[in-house]
Amino acid sequence: MKKLEVLKNVTSANDAIAAQNTQVLDKHGILAINLMSSPGSGKTSLILKTIEHFKGELRLAVIEGDVASKIDADRIDKQGVPVVQINTGGSCSLEAHMVTSALDKLPLERADILLIENVGNLICPAEFTLGEHKKVVISSIPEGDDKPLKYPLMFTEADVLVINKIDLLSHFEFDVTGFRKAVKGLNPTIEVFEVSCKTGVGIQAWCSWIADELRKKRA
Amino acid sequence: MKKLEVLKNVTSANDAIAAQNTQVLDKHGILAINLMSSPGSGKTSLILKTIEHFKGELRLAVIEGDVASKIDADRIDKQGVPVVQINTGGSCSLEAHMVTSALDKLPLERADILLIENVGNLICPAEFTLGEHKKVVISSIPEGDDKPLKYPLMFTEADVLVINKIDLLSHFEFDVTGFRKAVKGLNPTIEVFEVSCKTGVGIQAWCSWIADELRKKRA
Repeated sequence: MKKLEVLKNVTSANDAIAAQNTQVLDKHGILAINLMSSPGSGKTSLILKTIEHFKGELRLAVIEGDVASKIDADRIDKQGVPVVQINTGGSCSLEAHMVTSALDKLPLERADILLIENVGNLICPAEFTLGEHKKVVISSIPEGDDKPLKYPLMFTEADVLVINKIDLLSHFEFDVTGFRKAVKGLNPTIEVFEVSCKTGVGIQAWCSWIADELRKKRA
Repeated sequence: MKKLEVLKNVTSANDAIAAQNTQVLDKHGILAINLMSSPGSGKTSLILKTIEHFKGELRLAVIEGDVASKIDADRIDKQGVPVVQINTGGSCSLEAHMVTSALDKLPLERADILLIENVGNLICPAEFTLGEHKKVVISSIPEGDDKPLKYPLMFTEADVLVINKIDLLSHFEFDVTGFRKAVKGLNPTIEVFEVSCKTGVGIQAWCSWIADELRKKRA
Protein backbone atom coordinates (compact mmCIF):
# COMPACT_ATOMS: atom_id res chain seq x y z
CA MET A 1 0.00 0.00 0.00
CA LYS A 2 2.90 2.33 0.71
CA LYS A 3 4.02 2.26 -2.93
CA LEU A 4 0.51 3.14 -4.11
CA GLU A 5 0.20 6.06 -1.73
CA VAL A 6 3.51 7.49 -2.85
CA LEU A 7 2.46 7.15 -6.48
CA LYS A 8 -0.82 8.96 -5.75
CA ASN A 9 1.04 11.85 -4.08
CA VAL A 10 3.46 12.02 -6.97
CA THR A 11 0.71 12.22 -9.61
CA SER A 12 -1.34 14.88 -7.82
CA ALA A 13 1.79 17.00 -7.31
CA ASN A 14 2.45 16.48 -11.03
CA ASP A 15 -1.08 17.60 -11.95
CA ALA A 16 -0.66 20.87 -10.03
CA ILE A 17 2.59 21.67 -11.85
CA ALA A 18 0.99 20.68 -15.17
CA ALA A 19 -1.80 23.21 -14.57
CA GLN A 20 0.83 25.93 -14.10
CA ASN A 21 2.48 24.89 -17.38
CA THR A 22 -0.87 25.23 -19.16
CA GLN A 23 -1.26 28.76 -17.75
CA VAL A 24 2.17 29.76 -19.10
CA LEU A 25 1.39 28.27 -22.51
CA ASP A 26 -2.03 29.94 -22.65
CA LYS A 27 -0.56 33.32 -21.74
CA HIS A 28 1.55 33.03 -24.90
CA GLY A 29 -1.28 31.63 -27.05
CA ILE A 30 0.71 28.46 -27.68
CA LEU A 31 -0.89 25.12 -28.59
CA ALA A 32 1.10 22.33 -26.90
CA ILE A 33 0.98 18.73 -28.15
CA ASN A 34 2.38 15.74 -26.23
CA LEU A 35 3.60 13.04 -28.65
CA MET A 36 3.79 9.53 -27.20
CA SER A 37 4.69 6.12 -28.68
CA SER A 38 6.86 3.04 -28.46
CA PRO A 39 10.54 3.54 -29.21
CA GLY A 40 11.05 3.90 -32.96
CA SER A 41 7.44 4.57 -34.02
CA GLY A 42 8.44 7.86 -35.61
CA LYS A 43 7.88 10.67 -33.10
CA THR A 44 10.97 12.61 -34.23
CA SER A 45 10.23 11.94 -37.90
CA LEU A 46 6.68 13.28 -37.46
CA ILE A 47 8.06 16.40 -35.75
CA LEU A 48 10.51 16.94 -38.61
CA LYS A 49 7.73 16.57 -41.20
CA THR A 50 5.55 19.01 -39.21
CA ILE A 51 8.38 21.55 -39.05
CA GLU A 52 8.88 21.25 -42.82
CA HIS A 53 5.14 21.70 -43.46
CA PHE A 54 4.75 24.85 -41.36
CA LYS A 55 7.99 26.56 -42.44
CA GLY A 56 7.29 30.28 -42.97
CA GLU A 57 3.71 29.84 -41.78
CA LEU A 58 3.70 28.95 -38.06
CA ARG A 59 6.50 29.15 -35.50
CA LEU A 60 7.35 25.87 -33.78
CA ALA A 61 9.26 25.02 -30.63
CA VAL A 62 10.17 21.52 -29.49
CA ILE A 63 10.90 19.71 -26.22
CA GLU A 64 12.70 16.39 -26.64
CA GLY A 65 12.41 13.78 -23.87
CA ASP A 66 14.73 10.78 -23.64
CA VAL A 67 16.23 8.65 -20.90
CA ALA A 68 19.66 9.54 -22.29
CA SER A 69 21.39 11.23 -25.30
CA LYS A 70 20.60 14.39 -27.25
CA ILE A 71 20.51 12.98 -30.77
CA ASP A 72 16.86 13.88 -31.33
CA ALA A 73 17.39 17.48 -30.19
CA ASP A 74 20.36 17.71 -32.56
CA ARG A 75 18.14 16.64 -35.47
CA ILE A 76 15.59 19.37 -34.60
CA ASP A 77 18.26 22.01 -33.99
CA LYS A 78 19.57 21.51 -37.55
CA GLN A 79 16.19 22.75 -38.80
CA GLY A 80 16.68 26.06 -36.99
CA VAL A 81 13.81 25.39 -34.58
CA PRO A 82 14.18 26.20 -30.85
CA VAL A 83 14.58 22.93 -28.95
CA VAL A 84 15.35 21.79 -25.40
CA GLN A 85 16.47 18.24 -24.65
CA ILE A 86 15.36 16.69 -21.36
CA ASN A 87 17.18 13.57 -20.17
CA THR A 88 15.11 11.78 -17.55
CA GLY A 89 17.98 9.62 -16.28
CA GLY A 90 16.07 6.46 -15.57
CA SER A 91 12.49 7.76 -15.57
CA CYS A 92 10.15 6.17 -18.08
CA SER A 93 8.14 9.36 -18.75
CA LEU A 94 8.47 13.10 -18.89
CA GLU A 95 6.87 14.74 -15.85
CA ALA A 96 5.34 18.20 -15.58
CA HIS A 97 8.22 19.74 -13.58
CA MET A 98 10.68 18.73 -16.34
CA VAL A 99 8.53 20.57 -18.87
CA THR A 100 8.44 23.64 -16.56
CA SER A 101 12.25 23.81 -16.68
CA ALA A 102 12.25 23.40 -20.44
CA LEU A 103 9.62 26.16 -20.91
CA ASP A 104 11.95 28.56 -19.06
CA LYS A 105 14.61 27.98 -21.73
CA LEU A 106 12.38 28.35 -24.81
CA PRO A 107 11.52 31.66 -26.58
CA LEU A 108 7.79 31.32 -25.89
CA GLU A 109 7.02 34.82 -27.10
CA ARG A 110 8.07 33.68 -30.58
CA ALA A 111 6.19 30.34 -30.76
CA ASP A 112 2.76 29.21 -31.99
CA ILE A 113 3.05 25.44 -31.54
CA LEU A 114 5.00 23.45 -28.94
CA LEU A 115 5.65 19.82 -29.82
CA ILE A 116 6.71 17.72 -26.83
CA GLU A 117 8.31 14.38 -27.69
CA ASN A 118 7.85 12.11 -24.71
CA VAL A 119 10.08 9.17 -23.73
CA GLY A 120 9.58 6.16 -26.03
CA ASN A 121 7.18 4.05 -23.98
CA LEU A 122 3.51 3.04 -24.22
CA ILE A 123 2.93 2.79 -20.47
CA CYS A 124 4.29 5.50 -18.14
CA PRO A 125 3.70 8.61 -20.33
CA ALA A 126 -0.05 7.88 -20.26
CA GLU A 127 0.02 8.45 -16.49
CA PHE A 128 1.62 11.92 -16.42
CA THR A 129 -0.07 15.00 -17.78
CA LEU A 130 2.44 17.71 -18.70
CA GLY A 131 0.13 20.69 -19.16
CA GLU A 132 -0.29 19.98 -22.89
CA HIS A 133 -3.54 20.78 -24.73
CA LYS A 134 -3.61 17.60 -26.79
CA LYS A 135 -2.23 14.10 -26.31
CA VAL A 136 -1.21 12.17 -29.43
CA VAL A 137 -0.24 8.50 -29.61
CA ILE A 138 1.70 7.25 -32.62
CA SER A 139 1.52 3.59 -33.64
CA SER A 140 3.55 2.20 -36.51
CA ILE A 141 2.72 -0.67 -38.83
CA PRO A 142 5.76 -2.85 -37.91
CA GLU A 143 4.71 -2.89 -34.22
CA GLY A 144 1.63 -4.97 -34.96
CA ASP A 145 -2.07 -4.30 -34.50
CA ASP A 146 -2.49 -5.75 -30.98
CA LYS A 147 -1.23 -2.72 -29.06
CA PRO A 148 -4.62 -1.23 -27.97
CA LEU A 149 -5.41 -4.48 -26.13
CA LYS A 150 -2.04 -4.56 -24.38
CA TYR A 151 -1.70 -0.86 -23.54
CA PRO A 152 -5.30 0.32 -23.12
CA LEU A 153 -4.60 3.41 -20.97
CA MET A 154 -2.45 5.06 -23.65
CA PHE A 155 -5.15 4.65 -26.30
CA THR A 156 -7.85 5.78 -23.86
CA GLU A 157 -6.00 8.97 -22.86
CA ALA A 158 -5.01 10.14 -26.35
CA ASP A 159 -7.00 12.74 -28.30
CA VAL A 160 -5.41 11.67 -31.57
CA LEU A 161 -3.95 8.47 -33.01
CA VAL A 162 -1.39 8.73 -35.79
CA ILE A 163 -0.78 5.45 -37.64
CA ASN A 164 2.72 5.88 -39.09
CA LYS A 165 4.77 3.90 -41.64
CA ILE A 166 1.56 3.22 -43.57
CA ASP A 167 3.74 2.71 -46.70
CA LEU A 168 4.88 -0.62 -45.15
CA LEU A 169 1.39 -2.15 -44.98
CA SER A 170 2.10 -4.74 -47.68
CA HIS A 171 5.06 -6.12 -45.68
CA PHE A 172 3.14 -6.79 -42.45
CA GLU A 173 -0.02 -8.54 -41.32
CA PHE A 174 -1.58 -5.41 -39.86
CA ASP A 175 -5.38 -5.17 -39.91
CA VAL A 176 -6.00 -1.39 -40.08
CA THR A 177 -9.79 -1.75 -39.86
CA GLY A 178 -9.56 -4.03 -36.81
CA PHE A 179 -6.96 -1.76 -35.22
CA ARG A 180 -9.14 1.34 -35.67
CA LYS A 181 -12.12 -0.57 -34.26
CA ALA A 182 -10.17 -1.68 -31.16
CA VAL A 183 -8.98 1.88 -30.53
CA LYS A 184 -12.48 3.37 -31.06
CA GLY A 185 -13.80 0.74 -28.64
CA LEU A 186 -11.58 2.21 -25.93
CA ASN A 187 -11.95 5.81 -27.04
CA PRO A 188 -14.91 6.61 -29.35
CA THR A 189 -13.97 10.28 -29.93
CA ILE A 190 -10.30 9.79 -30.86
CA GLU A 191 -9.27 11.27 -34.22
CA VAL A 192 -7.17 9.05 -36.47
CA PHE A 193 -4.62 9.96 -39.15
CA GLU A 194 -2.81 7.46 -41.37
CA VAL A 195 0.57 8.84 -42.42
CA SER A 196 3.96 7.94 -43.77
CA CYS A 197 6.77 10.20 -42.65
CA LYS A 198 8.85 8.56 -45.40
CA THR A 199 6.56 9.24 -48.39
CA GLY A 200 4.71 12.24 -46.93
CA VAL A 201 1.28 10.61 -47.29
CA GLY A 202 -1.21 11.99 -44.75
CA ILE A 203 1.06 14.76 -43.42
CA GLN A 204 -1.17 17.44 -44.95
CA ALA A 205 -4.24 16.17 -43.02
CA TRP A 206 -2.26 15.89 -39.77
CA CYS A 207 -0.95 19.46 -40.12
CA SER A 208 -4.42 20.78 -41.01
CA TRP A 209 -5.65 19.33 -37.73
CA ILE A 210 -2.89 21.18 -35.84
CA ALA A 211 -3.66 24.47 -37.63
CA ASP A 212 -7.39 24.05 -36.89
CA GLU A 213 -6.74 23.38 -33.20
CA LEU A 214 -4.55 26.49 -32.98
CA ARG A 215 -7.27 28.56 -34.66
CA LYS A 216 -9.93 27.22 -32.26
CA LYS A 217 -7.69 27.94 -29.28
CA ARG A 218 -7.11 31.53 -30.34
CA ALA A 219 -10.70 32.19 -31.47
CA MET B 1 14.69 12.12 -1.98
CA LYS B 2 11.71 10.24 -0.57
CA LYS B 3 10.83 8.80 -3.97
CA LEU B 4 14.38 7.56 -4.46
CA GLU B 5 14.46 5.88 -1.04
CA VAL B 6 11.20 4.08 -1.73
CA LEU B 7 12.53 2.92 -5.08
CA LYS B 8 15.69 1.59 -3.41
CA ASN B 9 13.65 -0.38 -0.87
CA VAL B 10 11.47 -1.76 -3.63
CA THR B 11 14.41 -2.96 -5.72
CA SER B 12 16.25 -4.64 -2.83
CA ALA B 13 13.05 -6.42 -1.78
CA ASN B 14 12.71 -7.46 -5.44
CA ASP B 15 16.29 -8.80 -5.51
CA ALA B 16 15.65 -11.01 -2.47
CA ILE B 17 12.56 -12.56 -4.07
CA ALA B 18 14.43 -12.97 -7.37
CA ALA B 19 17.14 -14.97 -5.55
CA GLN B 20 14.42 -17.32 -4.24
CA ASN B 21 13.07 -17.74 -7.78
CA THR B 22 16.56 -18.71 -8.97
CA GLN B 23 16.77 -21.36 -6.23
CA VAL B 24 13.46 -22.88 -7.33
CA LEU B 25 14.54 -22.90 -10.98
CA ASP B 26 17.95 -24.40 -10.13
CA LYS B 27 16.35 -27.14 -8.06
CA HIS B 28 14.51 -28.21 -11.22
CA GLY B 29 17.53 -27.78 -13.50
CA ILE B 30 15.66 -25.16 -15.55
CA LEU B 31 17.39 -22.46 -17.60
CA ALA B 32 15.31 -19.26 -17.37
CA ILE B 33 15.60 -16.49 -19.95
CA ASN B 34 14.10 -13.00 -19.55
CA LEU B 35 13.12 -11.52 -22.95
CA MET B 36 12.88 -7.74 -23.08
CA SER B 37 12.17 -5.26 -25.89
CA SER B 38 10.04 -2.37 -27.14
CA PRO B 39 6.43 -3.20 -27.95
CA GLY B 40 6.25 -5.09 -31.23
CA SER B 41 9.93 -6.06 -31.62
CA GLY B 42 9.01 -9.72 -31.80
CA LYS B 43 9.30 -11.27 -28.32
CA THR B 44 6.27 -13.55 -28.82
CA SER B 45 7.35 -14.43 -32.37
CA LEU B 46 10.82 -15.41 -31.12
CA ILE B 47 9.24 -17.58 -28.41
CA LEU B 48 7.03 -19.30 -31.01
CA LYS B 49 10.04 -19.96 -33.28
CA THR B 50 11.99 -21.32 -30.28
CA ILE B 51 9.11 -23.65 -29.34
CA GLU B 52 8.96 -24.90 -32.93
CA HIS B 53 12.73 -25.51 -33.02
CA PHE B 54 12.88 -27.51 -29.78
CA LYS B 55 9.71 -29.58 -30.34
CA GLY B 56 10.40 -33.18 -29.25
CA GLU B 57 13.87 -32.22 -28.05
CA LEU B 58 13.57 -29.91 -25.03
CA ARG B 59 10.56 -29.09 -22.86
CA LEU B 60 9.63 -25.42 -22.72
CA ALA B 61 7.48 -23.38 -20.36
CA VAL B 62 6.52 -19.74 -20.83
CA ILE B 63 5.54 -16.77 -18.66
CA GLU B 64 3.83 -13.94 -20.55
CA GLY B 65 3.94 -10.43 -19.09
CA ASP B 66 1.66 -7.64 -20.28
CA VAL B 67 -0.05 -4.61 -18.80
CA ALA B 68 -3.36 -6.06 -20.00
CA SER B 69 -4.84 -8.86 -22.17
CA LYS B 70 -3.92 -12.51 -22.59
CA ILE B 71 -3.53 -12.67 -26.36
CA ASP B 72 0.15 -13.65 -26.19
CA ALA B 73 -0.54 -16.48 -23.74
CA ASP B 74 -3.31 -17.73 -26.04
CA ARG B 75 -0.81 -17.88 -28.93
CA ILE B 76 1.59 -19.97 -26.80
CA ASP B 77 -1.16 -22.19 -25.41
CA LYS B 78 -2.15 -23.19 -28.96
CA GLN B 79 1.30 -24.79 -29.30
CA GLY B 80 0.59 -27.07 -26.34
CA VAL B 81 3.27 -25.43 -24.19
CA PRO B 82 2.55 -24.65 -20.50
CA VAL B 83 2.06 -20.89 -20.14
CA VAL B 84 1.01 -18.42 -17.45
CA GLN B 85 -0.12 -14.89 -18.30
CA ILE B 86 0.74 -12.12 -15.85
CA ASN B 87 -1.13 -8.82 -16.20
CA THR B 88 0.73 -6.06 -14.38
CA GLY B 89 -2.22 -3.63 -14.36
CA GLY B 90 -0.29 -0.42 -14.84
CA SER B 91 3.25 -1.53 -14.00
CA CYS B 92 5.84 -1.08 -16.73
CA SER B 93 7.83 -4.21 -15.85
CA LEU B 94 7.45 -7.70 -14.48
CA GLU B 95 8.75 -7.93 -10.91
CA ALA B 96 10.18 -10.94 -9.12
CA HIS B 97 7.11 -11.58 -6.94
CA MET B 98 4.91 -11.84 -10.04
CA VAL B 99 7.24 -14.52 -11.41
CA THR B 100 7.08 -16.37 -8.06
CA SER B 101 3.29 -16.64 -8.41
CA ALA B 102 3.63 -17.83 -12.01
CA LEU B 103 6.24 -20.48 -11.09
CA ASP B 104 3.73 -21.94 -8.62
CA LYS B 105 1.33 -22.56 -11.51
CA LEU B 106 3.80 -24.13 -13.99
CA PRO B 107 4.74 -27.85 -14.16
CA LEU B 108 8.41 -27.16 -13.34
CA GLU B 109 9.22 -30.87 -12.96
CA ARG B 110 8.50 -31.26 -16.68
CA ALA B 111 10.44 -28.24 -18.04
CA ASP B 112 13.98 -27.65 -19.31
CA ILE B 113 13.72 -24.04 -20.48
CA LEU B 114 11.58 -21.20 -19.10
CA LEU B 115 11.08 -18.25 -21.42
CA ILE B 116 9.79 -15.13 -19.67
CA GLU B 117 8.32 -12.46 -21.94
CA ASN B 118 8.58 -9.15 -20.11
CA VAL B 119 6.32 -6.11 -20.63
CA GLY B 120 7.10 -4.29 -23.91
CA ASN B 121 9.32 -1.48 -22.69
CA LEU B 122 13.02 -0.58 -23.00
CA ILE B 123 13.27 1.18 -19.64
CA CYS B 124 11.65 -0.38 -16.54
CA PRO B 125 12.40 -4.09 -17.20
CA ALA B 126 16.14 -3.31 -17.14
CA GLU B 127 15.73 -2.31 -13.47
CA PHE B 128 14.07 -5.47 -12.13
CA THR B 129 15.82 -8.82 -11.97
CA LEU B 130 13.35 -11.71 -11.90
CA GLY B 131 15.65 -14.57 -10.90
CA GLU B 132 16.39 -15.47 -14.54
CA HIS B 133 19.77 -16.88 -15.62
CA LYS B 134 20.08 -14.80 -18.79
CA LYS B 135 18.72 -11.44 -19.89
CA VAL B 136 18.00 -10.96 -23.61
CA VAL B 137 17.13 -7.71 -25.34
CA ILE B 138 15.47 -7.82 -28.77
CA SER B 139 15.81 -4.90 -31.17
CA SER B 140 14.07 -4.85 -34.52
CA ILE B 141 15.14 -3.15 -37.73
CA PRO B 142 12.05 -0.83 -38.05
CA GLU B 143 12.79 0.71 -34.61
CA GLY B 144 15.97 2.37 -35.88
CA ASP B 145 19.61 2.03 -34.86
CA ASP B 146 19.75 4.78 -32.23
CA LYS B 147 18.25 2.79 -29.34
CA PRO B 148 21.51 1.92 -27.46
CA LEU B 149 22.21 5.65 -27.04
CA LYS B 150 18.69 6.39 -25.77
CA TYR B 151 18.20 3.34 -23.53
CA PRO B 152 21.73 2.50 -22.35
CA LEU B 153 20.80 0.55 -19.19
CA MET B 154 18.87 -2.09 -21.14
CA PHE B 155 21.79 -2.75 -23.49
CA THR B 156 24.25 -2.73 -20.58
CA GLU B 157 22.27 -5.26 -18.51
CA ALA B 158 21.56 -7.77 -21.30
CA ASP B 159 23.66 -10.91 -21.84
CA VAL B 160 22.39 -11.30 -25.39
CA LEU B 161 21.12 -8.99 -28.12
CA VAL B 162 18.80 -10.41 -30.77
CA ILE B 163 18.41 -8.18 -33.85
CA ASN B 164 15.05 -9.23 -35.29
CA LYS B 165 13.24 -8.51 -38.60
CA ILE B 166 16.63 -8.62 -40.35
CA ASP B 167 14.74 -9.46 -43.59
CA LEU B 168 13.53 -5.82 -43.64
CA LEU B 169 17.02 -4.28 -43.82
CA SER B 170 16.58 -3.03 -47.39
CA HIS B 171 13.49 -1.00 -46.38
CA PHE B 172 15.13 0.96 -43.56
CA GLU B 173 18.21 3.07 -42.97
CA PHE B 174 19.60 0.84 -40.23
CA ASP B 175 23.39 0.68 -39.85
CA VAL B 176 23.92 -2.83 -38.40
CA THR B 177 27.70 -2.34 -38.01
CA GLY B 178 27.25 0.98 -36.19
CA PHE B 179 24.48 -0.49 -34.06
CA ARG B 180 26.63 -3.47 -33.00
CA LYS B 181 29.51 -1.09 -32.26
CA ALA B 182 27.32 1.15 -30.05
CA VAL B 183 26.02 -1.87 -28.12
CA LYS B 184 29.52 -3.37 -27.69
CA GLY B 185 30.69 0.04 -26.46
CA LEU B 186 28.21 -0.22 -23.59
CA ASN B 187 28.61 -3.96 -23.09
CA PRO B 188 31.73 -5.57 -24.61
CA THR B 189 30.80 -9.19 -23.72
CA ILE B 190 27.23 -9.18 -25.08
CA GLU B 191 26.47 -11.94 -27.61
CA VAL B 192 24.61 -10.87 -30.76
CA PHE B 193 22.29 -12.84 -33.04
CA GLU B 194 20.72 -11.50 -36.23
CA VAL B 195 17.41 -13.26 -36.92
CA SER B 196 14.16 -13.05 -38.81
CA CYS B 197 11.21 -14.72 -37.11
CA LYS B 198 9.43 -14.38 -40.45
CA THR B 199 11.95 -16.17 -42.69
CA GLY B 200 13.62 -18.27 -39.97
CA VAL B 201 17.10 -16.87 -40.68
CA GLY B 202 19.33 -17.04 -37.58
CA ILE B 203 16.90 -19.07 -35.45
CA GLN B 204 19.22 -22.12 -35.56
CA ALA B 205 22.11 -20.09 -34.07
CA TRP B 206 19.87 -18.55 -31.38
CA CYS B 207 18.54 -21.97 -30.36
CA SER B 208 22.05 -23.47 -30.34
CA TRP B 209 23.02 -20.79 -27.85
CA ILE B 210 20.07 -21.77 -25.61
CA ALA B 211 20.94 -25.48 -25.83
CA ASP B 212 24.60 -24.72 -25.01
CA GLU B 213 23.64 -22.64 -21.99
CA LEU B 214 21.39 -25.43 -20.71
CA ARG B 215 24.22 -27.96 -21.17
CA LYS B 216 26.68 -25.68 -19.31
CA LYS B 217 24.18 -25.17 -16.50
CA ARG B 218 23.62 -28.90 -16.03
CA ALA B 219 27.30 -29.91 -16.48
